[in-house]
Amino acid sequence: MKYSFKFKEYDPKIEGIYGTILTLGNGHIGIRGEIELEPTIYGTTIAGVYDYAPYFYREIINAPRVIGIQALFNGEPICLSGQKLLNYERELDIEDATLKTFVSVKTQSGAKIDYESIRIVHGKRKNLAILKFKIKADRDGLLTLISPIETDVANPSYRNEIMIKHYNVEELEESKKGIYAGVRTLDGKYKIEIASSLVSEGNIKRTVVKNTKGITEILNVKIEKGKTYEFIKYIVIISSEDSNLKDKAFQEIEEARALGFDKLYKEHKEYWEKIWEKANIEIDGDDQAEKGLKFSLFHLIQSMPKDSKISLTARGIHGFGYRGHVFWDTEIYALPFFMAVFPEKTREMLMYRYNNLDAARENAKLNGYKGAQFPWESADDGYEATPPLIPLDMIGKGVVRIYTGEEEHHITADIAYAVELYYKFTNDDDFMSKYGLEIILETARFWASRVEYDKEKGYVIKKVIGPDEYHEHVNNNFFTNLMAKYNLILAAEYYRKAKELGGDWLETVKRIGVNEEEVMKWLEIAEKIYIPRQVNGVFEQFDGYFDLMDYTIDPYGIGENRLPEEVKRNLGKTKLIKQADVIAAQYLLKEQFDLETIKKNFDYYVVRTTHASSLSMPAYSIVASWLGYEDLAYDYFIKCAFIDLHNIYGNTQDGFHLATAGGVWQILFRGFCGIEIKGDTLKITPRLPQKWRSVKLKFFFKGALLSLEIKNDEVKAKVINDKSAKISAFSKDVLLKPGEEIILRGEAR
Amino acid sequence: MKYSFKFKEYDPKIEGIYGTILTLGNGHIGIRGEIELEPTIYGTTIAGVYDYAPYFYREIINAPRVIGIQALFNGEPICLSGQKLLNYERELDIEDATLKTFVSVKTQSGAKIDYESIRIVHGKRKNLAILKFKIKADRDGLLTLISPIETDVANPSYRNEIMIKHYNVEELEESKKGIYAGVRTLDGKYKIEIASSLVSEGNIKRTVVKNTKGITEILNVKIEKGKTYEFIKYIVIISSEDSNLKDKAFQEIEEARALGFDKLYKEHKEYWEKIWEKANIEIDGDDQAEKGLKFSLFHLIQSMPKDSKISLTARGIHGFGYRGHVFWDTEIYALPFFMAVFPEKTREMLMYRYNNLDAARENAKLNGYKGAQFPWESADDGYEATPPLIPLDMIGKGVVRIYTGEEEHHITADIAYAVELYYKFTNDDDFMSKYGLEIILETARFWASRVEYDKEKGYVIKKVIGPDEYHEHVNNNFFTNLMAKYNLILAAEYYRKAKELGGDWLETVKRIGVNEEEVMKWLEIAEKIYIPRQVNGVFEQFDGYFDLMDYTIDPYGIGENRLPEEVKRNLGKTKLIKQADVIAAQYLLKEQFDLETIKKNFDYYVVRTTHASSLSMPAYSIVASWLGYEDLAYDYFIKCAFIDLHNIYGNTQDGFHLATAGGVWQILFRGFCGIEIKGDTLKITPRLPQKWRSVKLKFFFKGALLSLEIKNDEVKAKVINDKSAKISAFSKDVLLKPGEEIILRGEAR
Repeated sequence: MKYSFKFKEYDPKIEGIYGTILTLGNGHIGIRGEIELEPTIYGTTIAGVYDYAPYFYREIINAPRVIGIQALFNGEPICLSGQKLLNYERELDIEDATLKTFVSVKTQSGAKIDYESIRIVHGKRKNLAILKFKIKADRDGLLTLISPIETDVANPSYRNEIMIKHYNVEELEESKKGIYAGVRTLDGKYKIEIASSLVSEGNIKRTVVKNTKGITEILNVKIEKGKTYEFIKYIVIISSEDSNLKDKAFQEIEEARALGFDKLYKEHKEYWEKIWEKANIEIDGDDQAEKGLKFSLFHLIQSMPKDSKISLTARGIHGFGYRGHVFWDTEIYALPFFMAVFPEKTREMLMYRYNNLDAARENAKLNGYKGAQFPWESADDGYEATPPLIPLDMIGKGVVRIYTGEEEHHITADIAYAVELYYKFTNDDDFMSKYGLEIILETARFWASRVEYDKEKGYVIKKVIGPDEYHEHVNNNFFTNLMAKYNLILAAEYYRKAKELGGDWLETVKRIGVNEEEVMKWLEIAEKIYIPRQVNGVFEQFDGYFDLMDYTIDPYGIGENRLPEEVKRNLGKTKLIKQADVIAAQYLLKEQFDLETIKKNFDYYVVRTTHASSLSMPAYSIVASWLGYEDLAYDYFIKCAFIDLHNIYGNTQDGFHLATAGGVWQILFRGFCGIEIKGDTLKITPRLPQKWRSVKLKFFFKGALLSLEIKNDEVKAKVINDKSAKISAFSKDVLLKPGEEIILRGEAR
Repeated sequence: MKYSFKFKEYDPKIEGIYGTILTLGNGHIGIRGEIELEPTIYGTTIAGVYDYAPYFYREIINAPRVIGIQALFNGEPICLSGQKLLNYERELDIEDATLKTFVSVKTQSGAKIDYESIRIVHGKRKNLAILKFKIKADRDGLLTLISPIETDVANPSYRNEIMIKHYNVEELEESKKGIYAGVRTLDGKYKIEIASSLVSEGNIKRTVVKNTKGITEILNVKIEKGKTYEFIKYIVIISSEDSNLKDKAFQEIEEARALGFDKLYKEHKEYWEKIWEKANIEIDGDDQAEKGLKFSLFHLIQSMPKDSKISLTARGIHGFGYRGHVFWDTEIYALPFFMAVFPEKTREMLMYRYNNLDAARENAKLNGYKGAQFPWESADDGYEATPPLIPLDMIGKGVVRIYTGEEEHHITADIAYAVELYYKFTNDDDFMSKYGLEIILETARFWASRVEYDKEKGYVIKKVIGPDEYHEHVNNNFFTNLMAKYNLILAAEYYRKAKELGGDWLETVKRIGVNEEEVMKWLEIAEKIYIPRQVNGVFEQFDGYFDLMDYTIDPYGIGENRLPEEVKRNLGKTKLIKQADVIAAQYLLKEQFDLETIKKNFDYYVVRTTHASSLSMPAYSIVASWLGYEDLAYDYFIKCAFIDLHNIYGNTQDGFHLATAGGVWQILFRGFCGIEIKGDTLKITPRLPQKWRSVKLKFFFKGALLSLEIKNDEVKAKVINDKSAKISAFSKDVLLKPGEEIILRGEAR
């Protein structure tokens, strides 16, 4: 593979979009793509480092900026906004995870300067980032390089004009090795140690300045006409919950300097080679689709945390959208890719939920329920982080009331679902018996306490918000009730399994004190839980939905802008929905529905869905694919694959849409490739778009690393590690042994 | 006179204190004294420019910084924090209102650079500020000057880590004349047009950079060893409520450049010569006292607004303390100096209250009262701007509830008092008949609706905070009740006067519909208003005060730090008071008390007052002076005169203490010089401190410009304009005719 993305337009107005799509990260630190030669409000993202904030509970902090460089030639700035720009190019190479920048300017006094840089956020060394740059001038002169650690960056609050600096600067220090800033979050919880060192050839006098804006190294070099000079800024960022690791920061800088850029880059490149060895997907016949897909996977992978302290956030390590909170986006949309391709990493991300199970228990208790209720939005501590209200103005006269934190309860079942799906992919008994089981049992407990008994309807769930957030305080949301039922049955089944298997399984059951009686109650509730009525085969999204004002729209459109003002202001009173809801349930729980029913529901809801949520199209696309609506499925796939490259939702500057990126993979996997797990067998039902000749991909299934080449009438399969796998395609079942390649053929659907 | 204040210590930790005490201003713009060569969070203060803010209603905005200069020599920064500092001096000259800066540094590569600057905020040209600076190096090299308009400055909110940028940048533009930033407050109300131009000898190539931090001019000059180079940064700041005045801003820059520094400085100097001609005070025998006094007057005068859109704010144009709000500090503490020395300016400042009378009427109505109730804290629109609560943490778990906005009602009488005092000083019939009268009548109406009738006590005023803010929700605060009574009687008297005089006077009475019946009611209330009981001659500060826990302290101490923790936490349950309250009433309404009563009250309260408010010592000092407590009176005088020079309250960085500065003048005027207005006569009863041989001062009394030289046994008086004045000293009354000088002698007290 070789994919790079080039951008040649410089415009401060779109720099924020480049900021997101050119982000480099290694799961621990994220450095946005804004050009290093200009100022920006964006500093550094450090996975898992949160602080208390007005309205948003805890938010991911905008840590000091480290990537910035100011350069002057003979006192004239080498920048984009004050000089004549002769050439400008940014190039993101997703193969080796580098960002290259090329800038040529002609200064006011006529000097022509070429600037070229490459940056990496080191894949393997989680604390390390490097900016290497070269400068050449067409005359002799003095080159001044100003290399700061900027400790004045802050988070934008509910409006951009309100900024919160989430850390105190505890120490600024210089040493022979470089400069250092030690900052601590305002709540005292996290210490962030940042060191950097600007290295040049030759022995150059350095000035270090410390002031209210940070600490800065300044180097001056006399350069000769036509000669290229190279500089390297090494950056180390360590975050920890307590220790003072200044020495470690300087030591890592020293180590990096000793190794040098080339060796470190090689390491980084090898790291990414290994990543792509697993994650690479080839789509024969559709370069554009492959490009969008890989771009999505690249950013997904960059956000994959280095430990279990945090999980994937809604906008990755790319920005501050949704305050760095973790939603159901993670488990339902993003994780399936990781389950298949990076199962061991998925386990860690699920451990984030397990580690916060006590907070979820407290959360349930606080709300009057039992078991564990996961928060709708989750930060580093697992407590509910959804803002109940956000001011609309400065003096708090107007506010938007947000009910999702109080009512969008389905996330608790979604997490149980993801735990089960992970187990289906991996058979990771160790995880399931010790941790996953506890999640499944405690979430079932939550639902058992959450339902109410209604004489006519049976068990009902009142006052919720389903995936479709246009309708609040609704009763018996189809998605929620169905997922709750699923969660209860799942728990009962695992209880039985635990009784059977004993060991860690039984230990877990005993630890949390589940007994036969409780499980019987779960099954009774599951059996009697009310599922909204069907009219002409269409499930009512919630009680009373069918009585709302009808309004239908073009399924190829996106968003609310196309609606008349009157409708936009009264969305909750119409049948319009924000995103897949009944269809989301059918996408997750396909086995519970026949295709005819799915079709009826799809046809009904797709013309009533605005897709104003970026989570909507993936579910619709997958289901459309199942139904043979190839055009629509493909249209959604492409839109999702280019959601940020084309800034489709207009908010790319706030961060990458990780759920959609995960959704793109799922469309390919579950939709076009038609891959399903049926018991211990992987079933493949190809439905590739017309122009796709084949899809090649690799992933793990129950420990076996499969390499598949899928065509509409042929599946070539091989296991390339030492495990076996059962696969099925075109109604043929085979057991694939280590190293064996099998070709299954059939009729294209 | 020739007074300058020199500072030789550079320490970033105390730079904020220098920021305040080295502020230059002209009533329209204020530029703090932080050194131009280093960054700071402080931008520019523009009188009257406010914007909505969380918690604080409207606050004065921190407008873009204009005074900053970054200089590099051969690429090495000429700054204080990164180079070896060989010499550092700041000099505030209050005679010609200039701030000079001298810095010598030795850079890392050994170059020695001398930097010298002078800045002015032009007295006469309200939009203009100038920074002239000279640079000399001990070797040839390249000098780079970076001169920005910094549009990233913001206001600190309830904690410094939360910053609010109160404006949007609408336009950044360069022209041959300079650079320009047009910004507008977030509420859309104020447009601020800023232009600047860095001018050097010779024709130098200029680069202009525009980015998210602002717009910047960059000049590069090849300089020769040992030669001094001079540069001038002209700055124009225009604020307006609507128009777009970019052209005007550039035009004023052009005009300033054409005139050049020397002519503009001459104009500025002449302006200040005229100021000091009026305001100068000489204290023969006590240079320190004179120095502190003049320093105080200088900063008071710098804050005097250029129009009636705003009045003096609690911390001047020096900082953001108290959010730029106007309190009773203005009318009771600061204005008397202006009444005597700048009467025409005082009229404008009182017009600020008149212009906001409708807001005060709405305020009264909102609270269920009649007439006009002035807000405890007032911004540009005259509505109540006191924060009812301030969060203690980021998520709003803890808050401080502030009741002053709801309960500190005495300000309404204080403003009526100041209107009357102004009239006593000036006999400004035009103001009084058209505007002042309306204020006095409408405030009396407020009090008539504010009192309640109690069968035993008569008219009572419940649930207030008096000047002493330790005790909230108290009934019948001595100060409040007495001032309300005063306000009612004053209104009745002026009603009678208006009936008598007719014309504008009667027009005003008719316009607001006051009649005989209403006035009779005022007088009835005034007669029956409850004045707290006296025990052994001491007035009880409010109902129940004498039952509180007693605690006495050293009257020479200041603040709460000297109190035991237990006491500090329970101040409201003790007899300790924050500031003059009963004594404040006796200072304002001296004629209502005999000296013996005043003495009893003083002796009682002075040992129970923490002086934690900067308004406390002036009142105590004046009364101490009357009582012959010279030591204490003088001690308080000196502390007040050096309140910010010595950072006595520890919060000088937030702005200048204008009320105390006005208080210093009042101690001299009413206390030591013993000057009182008795009907149409100015009565002088000298009580100069021992070491003071004489005080020479000038001020207006009913249109006559008096020049006085006061000794303890002699008063020399002269009228130096064309008016006459009646004066009285040592029991001798004389009518002083234009040009006439009279010497009155008597026995020193």
